[in-house]
Amino acid sequence: LSSEKILIKGGTVVNAHRKEVADVYIEDGIVVSVRPNIKVGDHVKIIDATGKYVMPGGIDPHTHLEMEFMGTVTIDDFFTGQAAALAGGTTMHIDFVIPVNGNLTAGLESYMNKAKKAVMDYGFHMAITKWDEGVSKDMELMVNEHGINSFKFFMAYKGSLMISDELLLQGLQKCKSLGAIAMVHAENGDAVAEGQKRMIDLGITGPEGHALSRPPVLEGEATARAIRLANFVNTPLYVVHVMSIDAMEEIAKARKEGQRVIGEPVASGLILDDSWLWHPDYTTAAKYVMSPPIRTSGHDKALRAALSTGVLQLVGTDHCTFNSTQKALGSEDFRKIPNGVNGIEERMHLIWDKMVESGQMTVTDYVRVTSTECAKVFNIYPRKGAILEGSDADIIILNPNASFKIASASHHSRSDTNVYEGTTGKGKVEATISQGRVVYEDGKLKVTPGSGRYIRMPPFGYLFDGMEKADAAYFASLNAPIQRTKSAA
Amino acid sequence: LSSEKILIKGGTVVNAHRKEVADVYIEDGIVVSVRPNIKVGDHVKIIDATGKYVMPGGIDPHTHLEMEFMGTVTIDDFFTGQAAALAGGTTMHIDFVIPVNGNLTAGLESYMNKAKKAVMDYGFHMAITKWDEGVSKDMELMVNEHGINSFKFFMAYKGSLMISDELLLQGLQKCKSLGAIAMVHAENGDAVAEGQKRMIDLGITGPEGHALSRPPVLEGEATARAIRLANFVNTPLYVVHVMSIDAMEEIAKARKEGQRVIGEPVASGLILDDSWLWHPDYTTAAKYVMSPPIRTSGHDKALRAALSTGVLQLVGTDHCTFNSTQKALGSEDFRKIPNGVNGIEERMHLIWDKMVESGQMTVTDYVRVTSTECAKVFNIYPRKGAILEGSDADIIILNPNASFKIASASHHSRSDTNVYEGTTGKGKVEATISQGRVVYEDGKLKVTPGSGRYIRMPPFGYLFDGMEKADAAYFASLNAPIQRTKSAA
Amino acid sequence: LSSEKILIKGGTVVNAHRKEVADVYIEDGIVVSVRPNIKVGDHVKIIDATGKYVMPGGIDPHTHLEMEFMGTVTIDDFFTGQAAALAGGTTMHIDFVIPVNGNLTAGLESYMNKAKKAVMDYGFHMAITKWDEGVSKDMELMVNEHGINSFKFFMAYKGSLMISDELLLQGLQKCKSLGAIAMVHAENGDAVAEGQKRMIDLGITGPEGHALSRPPVLEGEATARAIRLANFVNTPLYVVHVMSIDAMEEIAKARKEGQRVIGEPVASGLILDDSWLWHPDYTTAAKYVMSPPIRTSGHDKALRAALSTGVLQLVGTDHCTFNSTQKALGSEDFRKIPNGVNGIEERMHLIWDKMVESGQMTVTDYVRVTSTECAKVFNIYPRKGAILEGSDADIIILNPNASFKIASASHHSRSDTNVYEGTTGKGKVEATISQGRVVYEDGKLKVTPGSGRYIRMPPFGYLFDGMEKADAAYFASLNAPIQRTKSAA
Amino acid sequence: LSSEKILIKGGTVVNAHRKEVADVYIEDGIVVSVRPNIKVGDHVKIIDATGKYVMPGGIDPHTHLEMEFMGTVTIDDFFTGQAAALAGGTTMHIDFVIPVNGNLTAGLESYMNKAKKAVMDYGFHMAITKWDEGVSKDMELMVNEHGINSFKFFMAYKGSLMISDELLLQGLQKCKSLGAIAMVHAENGDAVAEGQKRMIDLGITGPEGHALSRPPVLEGEATARAIRLANFVNTPLYVVHVMSIDAMEEIAKARKEGQRVIGEPVASGLILDDSWLWHPDYTTAAKYVMSPPIRTSGHDKALRAALSTGVLQLVGTDHCTFNSTQKALGSEDFRKIPNGVNGIEERMHLIWDKMVESGQMTVTDYVRVTSTECAKVFNIYPRKGAILEGSDADIIILNPNASFKIASASHHSRSDTNVYEGTTGKGKVEATISQGRVVYEDGKLKVTPGSGRYIRMPPFGYLFDGMEKADAAYFASLNAPIQRTKSAA
Ligand SMILES: [Zn+2]
Ligand SMILES: [Zn+2]
Ligand SMILES: [Zn+2]
Ligand SMILES: [Zn+2]
Ligand SMILES: [Zn+2]
Ligand SMILES: [Zn+2]
Ligand SMILES: [Zn+2]
Ligand SMILES: [Zn+2]
Repeated sequence: LSSEKILIKGGTVVNAHRKEVADVYIEDGIVVSVRPNIKVGDHVKIIDATGKYVMPGGIDPHTHLEMEFMGTVTIDDFFTGQAAALAGGTTMHIDFVIPVNGNLTAGLESYMNKAKKAVMDYGFHMAITKWDEGVSKDMELMVNEHGINSFKFFMAYKGSLMISDELLLQGLQKCKSLGAIAMVHAENGDAVAEGQKRMIDLGITGPEGHALSRPPVLEGEATARAIRLANFVNTPLYVVHVMSIDAMEEIAKARKEGQRVIGEPVASGLILDDSWLWHPDYTTAAKYVMSPPIRTSGHDKALRAALSTGVLQLVGTDHCTFNSTQKALGSEDFRKIPNGVNGIEERMHLIWDKMVESGQMTVTDYVRVTSTECAKVFNIYPRKGAILEGSDADIIILNPNASFKIASASHHSRSDTNVYEGTTGKGKVEATISQGRVVYEDGKLKVTPGSGRYIRMPPFGYLFDGMEKADAAYFASLNAPIQRTKSAA
Repeated sequence: LSSEKILIKGGTVVNAHRKEVADVYIEDGIVVSVRPNIKVGDHVKIIDATGKYVMPGGIDPHTHLEMEFMGTVTIDDFFTGQAAALAGGTTMHIDFVIPVNGNLTAGLESYMNKAKKAVMDYGFHMAITKWDEGVSKDMELMVNEHGINSFKFFMAYKGSLMISDELLLQGLQKCKSLGAIAMVHAENGDAVAEGQKRMIDLGITGPEGHALSRPPVLEGEATARAIRLANFVNTPLYVVHVMSIDAMEEIAKARKEGQRVIGEPVASGLILDDSWLWHPDYTTAAKYVMSPPIRTSGHDKALRAALSTGVLQLVGTDHCTFNSTQKALGSEDFRKIPNGVNGIEERMHLIWDKMVESGQMTVTDYVRVTSTECAKVFNIYPRKGAILEGSDADIIILNPNASFKIASASHHSRSDTNVYEGTTGKGKVEATISQGRVVYEDGKLKVTPGSGRYIRMPPFGYLFDGMEKADAAYFASLNAPIQRTKSAA
Repeated sequence: LSSEKILIKGGTVVNAHRKEVADVYIEDGIVVSVRPNIKVGDHVKIIDATGKYVMPGGIDPHTHLEMEFMGTVTIDDFFTGQAAALAGGTTMHIDFVIPVNGNLTAGLESYMNKAKKAVMDYGFHMAITKWDEGVSKDMELMVNEHGINSFKFFMAYKGSLMISDELLLQGLQKCKSLGAIAMVHAENGDAVAEGQKRMIDLGITGPEGHALSRPPVLEGEATARAIRLANFVNTPLYVVHVMSIDAMEEIAKARKEGQRVIGEPVASGLILDDSWLWHPDYTTAAKYVMSPPIRTSGHDKALRAALSTGVLQLVGTDHCTFNSTQKALGSEDFRKIPNGVNGIEERMHLIWDKMVESGQMTVTDYVRVTSTECAKVFNIYPRKGAILEGSDADIIILNPNASFKIASASHHSRSDTNVYEGTTGKGKVEATISQGRVVYEDGKLKVTPGSGRYIRMPPFGYLFDGMEKADAAYFASLNAPIQRTKSAA
Repeated sequence: LSSEKILIKGGTVVNAHRKEVADVYIEDGIVVSVRPNIKVGDHVKIIDATGKYVMPGGIDPHTHLEMEFMGTVTIDDFFTGQAAALAGGTTMHIDFVIPVNGNLTAGLESYMNKAKKAVMDYGFHMAITKWDEGVSKDMELMVNEHGINSFKFFMAYKGSLMISDELLLQGLQKCKSLGAIAMVHAENGDAVAEGQKRMIDLGITGPEGHALSRPPVLEGEATARAIRLANFVNTPLYVVHVMSIDAMEEIAKARKEGQRVIGEPVASGLILDDSWLWHPDYTTAAKYVMSPPIRTSGHDKALRAALSTGVLQLVGTDHCTFNSTQKALGSEDFRKIPNGVNGIEERMHLIWDKMVESGQMTVTDYVRVTSTECAKVFNIYPRKGAILEGSDADIIILNPNASFKIASASHHSRSDTNVYEGTTGKGKVEATISQGRVVYEDGKLKVTPGSGRYIRMPPFGYLFDGMEKADAAYFASLNAPIQRTKSAA
């Protein structure tokens, strides 16, 4: 298989920095050449991409495959989740390793095992859920030995994943020293707990209680807090799943002042609104439960606007899927509804339709927000996120004149529901190439368990560029310490 | 003494709502009449106020007399501090009771004792420094039995006064139920602790390290957090000592969105800048150490602008005075410098000069920010904060054409230093009347220990007006709970 | 009639600065006494106000009675408009004199004539629609001889009322020198004209085209422009009919920076949304046409929030009424629909219900925004806007437990429609006293044409306080001119 | 010469999208290959770039060579200005054609003549200074025949270049239809004229009067106005020389809301502050006079922050140089000081030092803001703005360890002064390659008059992508026109 040779002919090759009509020649999983009119010999698979876009495969920076959570396990594992991804034009994702009882090494081992059935490339972020010397040492190990360059801190999920400001500060400083990116789930977990109690006290036990218990102001609060603590430490910050205007405006403000903050909206937050949570059918309503919640109409539009101009930088999914039976765990109490929605298969189509087909975003920016910026932030560009000579041959072919339709009956996730059920739009991924192999074509998937590779992500990516110089300049500017005589005056 | 009768003739009587040329007649400590050309009989002291302003005595919402803090005790007690106040035109203050080992009742008892030497009227806020059932019960007692209607939460001073978000949320909810105002000292205490450590590690042990260790971003963070948690609970919030643009802008934003947030700048923050902390003389530098720190030039001007248009509402001092010997405790380590500056005597003059004499504020607004708004917020208006028939006769006479000069040699505080040393300006309080008695005149104080009265402040002041209706409207708007059949779909 | 004596007993007397249970005694049109338990002799009309609010009559800062506009004349004149006002609890209004061919004196004469049938007190603003030496001189005359202290500039209505930036700057400077308040109708008139053309070109000729042709961005633009030019000149600015978030945010920003800007939302903007303009019945849709347009839902709520915290200061109506026949002038072309809605009768009820009954505003603030602030801004306080000894006896009695219902069948305007048709709410003005006479009681009006008085408004109101000192400080700060030698280097 | 072959060996090749250690091979003025270890034959000039950065030559989007202005002519023409540019690492610029008596064609002809002595590539923007059918037609001609895709509108320079809102709206609409970018010089010209008069009246006739007469609020105003009018028309806007926080914040706000606005700070605004204008030596002070003025300290820092995060997008110079004799024209009246500063030679060094060497910006972003983004905005990428196969060989080699020093004695401009006199910093352009020829090396320039080429810039660049779809979506969303029966109700 590794000797497969492919020529993609006549398409518009789109990189974040450029689009051009060109052929792409692939050998041994690597892009060998990108230029017009490439001549090839025999034994080369030819794909005609005339009138279509040839783009880097999507990279989803935010997924949870086979994650133990809220008493159950997400239904998509590294096989089904990745298969769905490939069918939807995503060729790499970065999943979150959850430590085992706070232990990072054990967590990584567990996830390495889960990923043995992988059918496409993947990387890992690592969650930090407690703090001690061991964790601190393990963070070094993760970065220096295990190819992890990002750590996530949960400011919500009180009693389980949530960490305090004190720990967050320790974490930010450790991240800075390691050249690793600090990520936050930004909601005020103490207030969320109060909000949940309030709703239950009011007799609001259904899915709508989920949204009401954790309003946007709590996301705005935590986002502001994380940003300012990162400013104080002077280290880059990555805010996952930006769901509200409140959070987005904090990011915009920080960036205006020169702070290095990355904002990741997710497909559900960009596309959906919370009216579904009021649906009279429990199963329907429950499938939209995620945290932070999908917001009222208006937040989605504002997030799309911010994405279109680079105020937010890249799009994830927080793919974290549970089926109806699992969602039914919370039928008497929304606090027990497993949090999460699907998206890994749908993201590329939805963003194309809502952002490009709508005229709000250029094709090159589409590549940037779905693939390139993720590769850059996590320091694997241009191996990933580009169609350049030497890049991994993770490529999609999108037909802008074809249409897509989303349905749980036909999707590749193991879940029996889909939060985008029935959604249609323009632009269809007609072929996906992963590691130089055509894995999706003519609506058919051809994947091999175990073929997916773990992609190591080195520390000190571009967000750290010049940081030590800026620190030095800052310290030089303090005009301190002052030499003093201790007077008695 | 209580039968003293006074007629203030021919001045411009200024209330926050109106200024008019009128006489003021006082009997038994109460304003009996305010109108032009009052005729009186014999045995009435006549004060000619022609060409001068006759205004409600200042009310300082924020002082710390005889407070045990950082291993020492503030040097002004209820006698010297209040004497200074009266000499400067302030006739009432509200001090902060610090619980004894977290116990509110013991704290109140202690402060009631300290206040036995009082020479003017005073009230109390109560600090909350831990949380349990006893504290919660005691809060009820304080409000319902002891005349306290405000509770302060410290978001800084880690390891001593600082409380967590969880406690703050409990406190906010308790305050709401009692009709008591929640107050916050807004700095992120965890980050401050890190910042202090960082400065010490850098060898910056002097007073300038104080400012550098707790930059404005940490005040902005905590202010944003407190505001949003108060929004979440829907209860009024009072932010003490707003020292930075960062904090002020959070208040402005919340108010624009209709939230009931009160912002209290203090004299030092409105007038001074942090350059003093870099002074080569330790004693000079150390006297400017307070928290949040006095900021770089520019913050002061922005705070004055916000005060002038009602974005900030009233002016305090955080009078918390230590003399040079006490300040010397931190000569090797800024973390040990007792935090605090003077102001109770200087506030009325400084605000007049900087705000009214500069043309930035009207005389009526001067009365509002120095006296009336405080009386309204803490629900003792119009007994205090006004010169109306029936009001307490706490009155000052200010000559706009005279000048003031501030010097530690002549001030009434027990401290040997003054952060406004040498400051001069226009507008001089020439007489102070407290409880209907002339206590300051011709530069001379005539005060009687024990004559000061404890002023009970009832709960549910104007900031709570309509809150239950707004809550009801909010709950009605939720369209929840939804009646559901639990489907299997 | 002038000798009528009235005692209002037992009500809650509300001033902007205070509410208290007290009696109010009135003689000869003046408030003689406000205190509990007033004893009176015979021949005094007693009104029992127990359980009700006794408040200053409303002052509407923004009306257009008998105005020639868009080829017709507003249907309410100084008789019917004022009668409606009194029936709704408004006892004074300030109307806009429109110059005759740009001539101010002729305009004033015309309006003085129109006002001969007045049944309540009134004042005048003056519009400035062209600029030359004569206009400049006439402005002086208006201020110094005729009791006018405010001038309005239209930034829209291209080709008729609109003025250029150049004229606006001249006007602002003239206003500053005279101590008169500059007012603006803030929309970009050039862009509105383009927008109208665009809609007609699209075949959108109905009332919905009105809103679409002049979106909020154009109101925000002009508001920003006027504010910044007033900042540049350093003179107070009054923005009439703030209809959008865009405009409100500009005002909020300027005030935060210390600028003296007054924002006047109007009843329609606070209560309604633009969905009516899409109504399939032309007559229904057309009655909502005013400029700036009533906005989409969300703007109303944001304006109410800003009003509740003083970011906006007082409420007008822009009462400018046309009946169905007149509105029909634009049935083929929205540009010909006479612009204007009713409100002079409804304002006091609507604001009570939406702001006070909803819990969003205190009763004292209600008095402030409906009456007191207007009297202060236009320098007729405390004769107007207060119930104080010596104030004009313009008073309403509002029963918070009674209800109101609005209907064109029963309103007092001459119009056959009402934009609030069918609206009900809590809080009912049960009696109106004007000039010390009960003019509305038991649902009955008793008014006398010609009894209304012209109220002169002196210049240099509170918004000008200290301005010359601020100017002097500014000039002193310039550190200019620099003395220079002209070198050749 | 055109057959020159060059191999740049071993440097770090930096494009905006990527940096990599590679060789660059150039033939016939075109980049032939970019990859490590390129083997070449004889007759190839080898440049060793080991340890140095190989980057696209700078493109200066904003210059005024040989422009007639304020009664004189800028002293640098297309020879000296371009020579200076090349010596400083800039290999292309876009100059502004000023129409002749409003006539575009005549203006272009004049500039084509001036450019005959060009020594490097250049393009043109076109100013629009009046409006009629002829201008409108000529704009079509410029775009469709003459390779111009941007038009500039002056909102200042009253009486000469300034246009009204009405014209600006016409211009924006025309630009939209042509796919041309509208550019604005954003200051309120009417207010500037008043401000100038005010300063003269105050006796402030020196250079400091220039800054005082046109404060930031007037730049903020015009920027807000232009942005909102462009929003209204829905066409891209390019704001030249963003000099103040006020203007930058308007751009930030618009971008956050999804509007396509480009902000161009210039070297002087990013680096300098206005204290120079108070210099006692006239010649020194006068050389800093430009419009909008260089601002007080603080604006520069805020602009750099905004540039670092993409809130502002690219850096120009507004190189518009006059020598001391010319500047002396205004020695009695700052209004006559020819407006303009140098920068075309200094920009690349200054931005490197202030942004990259300081640690605030990555090297790739440096390329983006100095070259690539300009090429993209003006639709000549990747011919310009990149080192890709097929790109024009406009390349610089920068040694990050060498230093630069700026002095009028050694600069290449014809001017006898330099606003950066004496400035030193790290990072030195050691070689410049233009059109594949080494034109600057070892501190020596080798340029050939007439060798510069006019670069045509096609319309409908990326800022127009999807605009017609967005417009269609907007119109579809209007739900208009409504079909109505004209009722009589
Ligand atoms: Zn999360
Ligand atoms: Zn997640
Ligand atoms: Zn404090
Ligand atoms: Zn304190
Ligand atoms: Zn108007
Ligand atoms: Zn009007
Ligand atoms: Zn310019
Ligand atoms: Zn220019």
